Amino acid sequence: MKLKQIQEAADVLKGVVRRTDLMEAPRLFQEGDLYLKPENLQVTGSFKVRGAYHKISRLSEEEKAKGVIACSAGNHAQGVALAAAKCGIPALICIPEGAPISKVEATKSYGAQVRLVRGVYDDAYQEARRLQRESGATFIHPFDDPDVIAGQGTVGMEIMEQLPDADAVIVPVGGGGLISGVACAVKSLRPQCKVYGVQVTGAPSMARALKEQKVASLRSVSTFADGIAVKCPGKLTYDLCEQYVDEVVTVTDDETAAAILALMEQHRLIAEGAGAVSVAAAMFHRLDLRGKKTVCVVSGGNIDVTILSRVISRGLTRAGRRGKLVLELVDKPGELREVSTAIAELGGNVVSVRHDQSGDEADITACTLSIGVETRDRDHLNRIRDAVVRAGYHILET
Amino acid sequence: MKLKQIQEAADVLKGVVRRTDLMEAPRLFQEGDLYLKPENLQVTGSFKVRGAYHKISRLSEEEKAKGVIACSAGNHAQGVALAAAKCGIPALICIPEGAPISKVEATKSYGAQVRLVRGVYDDAYQEARRLQRESGATFIHPFDDPDVIAGQGTVGMEIMEQLPDADAVIVPVGGGGLISGVACAVKSLRPQCKVYGVQVTGAPSMARALKEQKVASLRSVSTFADGIAVKCPGKLTYDLCEQYVDEVVTVTDDETAAAILALMEQHRLIAEGAGAVSVAAAMFHRLDLRGKKTVCVVSGGNIDVTILSRVISRGLTRAGRRGKLVLELVDKPGELREVSTAIAELGGNVVSVRHDQSGDEADITACTLSIGVETRDRDHLNRIRDAVVRAGYHILET
Repeated sequence: MKLKQIQEAADVLKGVVRRTDLMEAPRLFQEGDLYLKPENLQVTGSFKVRGAYHKISRLSEEEKAKGVIACSAGNHAQGVALAAAKCGIPALICIPEGAPISKVEATKSYGAQVRLVRGVYDDAYQEARRLQRESGATFIHPFDDPDVIAGQGTVGMEIMEQLPDADAVIVPVGGGGLISGVACAVKSLRPQCKVYGVQVTGAPSMARALKEQKVASLRSVSTFADGIAVKCPGKLTYDLCEQYVDEVVTVTDDETAAAILALMEQHRLIAEGAGAVSVAAAMFHRLDLRGKKTVCVVSGGNIDVTILSRVISRGLTRAGRRGKLVLELVDKPGELREVSTAIAELGGNVVSVRHDQSGDEADITACTLSIGVETRDRDHLNRIRDAVVRAGYHILET
Repeated sequence: MKLKQIQEAADVLKGVVRRTDLMEAPRLFQEGDLYLKPENLQVTGSFKVRGAYHKISRLSEEEKAKGVIACSAGNHAQGVALAAAKCGIPALICIPEGAPISKVEATKSYGAQVRLVRGVYDDAYQEARRLQRESGATFIHPFDDPDVIAGQGTVGMEIMEQLPDADAVIVPVGGGGLISGVACAVKSLRPQCKVYGVQVTGAPSMARALKEQKVASLRSVSTFADGIAVKCPGKLTYDLCEQYVDEVVTVTDDETAAAILALMEQHRLIAEGAGAVSVAAAMFHRLDLRGKKTVCVVSGGNIDVTILSRVISRGLTRAGRRGKLVLELVDKPGELREVSTAIAELGGNVVSVRHDQSGDEADITACTLSIGVETRDRDHLNRIRDAVVRAGYHILET
C-alpha cells in the first residue's frame, strides 16, 4: 500500500462521499486536545462507502456489467449498495437472517437486491461465494482488498489535511481495513504521529494477532459492537497493521456504552458500538494522550434505536442518574405516601412504582415496594436512599 | 436589519463558531431535495452562541468590564456563558430552579456564574433585571436585540453560500431571533427563496401574532420543545418576520417526536424538540415542498437523555415497532410457554413479561399476562396479535 493509491482514491471519491468535519471535543477528554472525525455522519452512516466505491470504480467495464456481490449484516452492505447504485451497476448482498430489519431495509433502499440467508455470517458468506461463482459477479471483500483499503485510507488523508500537527489518531478495528488505510496515509504524511487501534475485549482478533505475530481465528466473539465483531483479521490488513500501527488496545462493552452516551450528551452524535470504541479508549485512559492533539475516528452510527435505548438506560443507571429502591413495607395505609414524600423532598423524580404483596420471603403482613427514580447523580441517589432509611424503612436492594 | 450587519457579524464569528455543514437528507423527504443545517452540532449545541458572541463583541471596553447577565433555562444560557468566556469577561446567568441539571452543569462548565432562582422563567427574568440594575452589567436579551439577531442571521448567510439555489429555508421559531436574522439574510441575497417558520401547536405565539397582526402574550404554553416555548415574540423580531417571512406553520409534539426519531435513525443526529420542528414540518407536509430544494435548520440538540429515551419509546410504540399484549390466561401450567411460542415463531422479540393474579375484574381462576414485544413494524405486530388470538387467547388490550 502506497500513499499514491490513497491519493488516487481521494480523487475518485470527490463529490461522492462526504468530507466529514473535524470536531473539537473538549468535554470528552480534558488532559489534551481531542477531536472527532465523525464518519457516522458519512453517507450510509459509516466509512464503508469509501472503500466500496473506490473498489467498484476500478472494475473493468466487463466486470461492471456482471455486477457486484457482497456479504454483510451491516455497514459494508449499505456501503456496497450505495456505491453500486452510484456507479449504475447491479449489487446483490447476502445478509444473515437475524440481522436487524433496519439494516436490511436500508440496504434495499439504496437499490441493492438482498438475499437473506438462514444461519450466521459464515453461512451468508458461503452463499455469497456460491452465487459469485455462478454469476461471475465481482465479490467485494469488506476489508482484505487493496482497493478497499485505499478507499478507507482517505479518512486518514483528510485528517492530516484538517489537523496537520496531530500527534495521535485512534481508529476502531474489526477486520482492519479502516486502520490499515488510515495508518498508511498518516505514517506516510507524518511519521511521528501515532496510530492506535481499538477493539473490544470480546473480539480482540487483531490485538491478539499482533501480539502472537500470526493471523489466527478466534473461536467466538461476544460484543454488542457488531461492526467490529470479526473473528479473523485479513492477511493484507495484518501485514499493514504490523508495519504501520503503534498499538492495538481493547475496551469493554460497558466502556463502549459509556462512550456512546457521552457522544450523545456532549456532541449530539449517535455512534454505534464499533464507532465509539476509539472515544472509549481515550475516555478510559487506555493510551497516554496527555498534552497531545488526538483524533478519534468515530467510524459509524448504524445502531438500532432499541439497542440505543438500552445503552441509555444502562448508562444512566451506572452513572447513578437512574436508580431503583426496593423497600419492605408494612402493609398498611399511608406507607406509599410517606416514602414518596421523602423522595420528592430531595428532588428525585419518580418514574415507576411497583407494589407487591406476593413476596414469599417477607412477613405475611409485609409487602415490597419497588420505586424507579431519576436523580442528578450518584450522590443525589445516595442522599435519597439515606432519607428513606432515616424515615424508618428497610431497603432490600438499590 | 440590513445584510451588512449580518456580514459584519460573520466576520466577527470567524474562528469562534463552527461553520456547520449542509447535509443532504434524502431519506427524510422523497418529494424534493431536503438538506439539513445542523446547528445542533454547533459549539454549545445550538445556534445561540452566534448571537451572544456578536452582541458581546460589540460592547465597549467599559461595558465589558462590568460583565454580562442573562436569563435562560437552556441554550441561551450556554451560548452567553461560552461567548463571555471567549471574550474574557464575567457572565452571570439566572436559571429557573426546575431547569434540567445537565443544562445548569453545562453553563457552569463554560465558566459562568449561575444563580438558581426559585420559580419559573419570569421569576428568573425579574431577578436578572434586578441584579443588572445593581451591578450595571449588560443584559443580553435572548432574541429581541439587533446585534443578537444579526449574529443568528449568519446561519442564513452560510446556507446561501452552501446552497445558492435553495428554494426554501425552514426555521424553528421561539421568540423569533433566529428566523429574523435568517430571513433577512436569505431574502437580501435571494428574494425568490421562501422562508418559513415553524412553531409547536402548544406555543404558537409568532404564528398568532402574524395572523392577528399584533404582538400579544399567550396565557400559557405547553410543549416538550422547551427551546421554543415562548409566550410572547419580540417587537423587533415580529416586525422582521412580518417583513421577511412567508409563513409560520405549526406541528404537534408527537410530530416533533417523530422527527427527532427520524433524525436519529436516518442521520445519526440528536436534535432537541425545538431543533426538530423544521424537519417535522417537512415530513408531515405542512408546506408544499415538492420538487424544491429545501433547507431545514436543525437549531439545537440540547435534550436531556431521559427525555430522549422517552421520545424513542413513544416513537417506537407509535410506529408499531414496540407493543404490549395484555392477555387473560387461565391460571394453569404451560400457558406462558404457549403464548411465548406463538410470538417467537413469528420473530417477535419479547422484552418484558408481567404475570398478575390480582386483577379484580377477571375470573378467580384467571390471571392477566402482559407481554412487551419488539417488532419490525405495525404489520408485524398485528400478525403476532392475530397469531395469539388464533392460539385461543383473549387479548384484553394491545
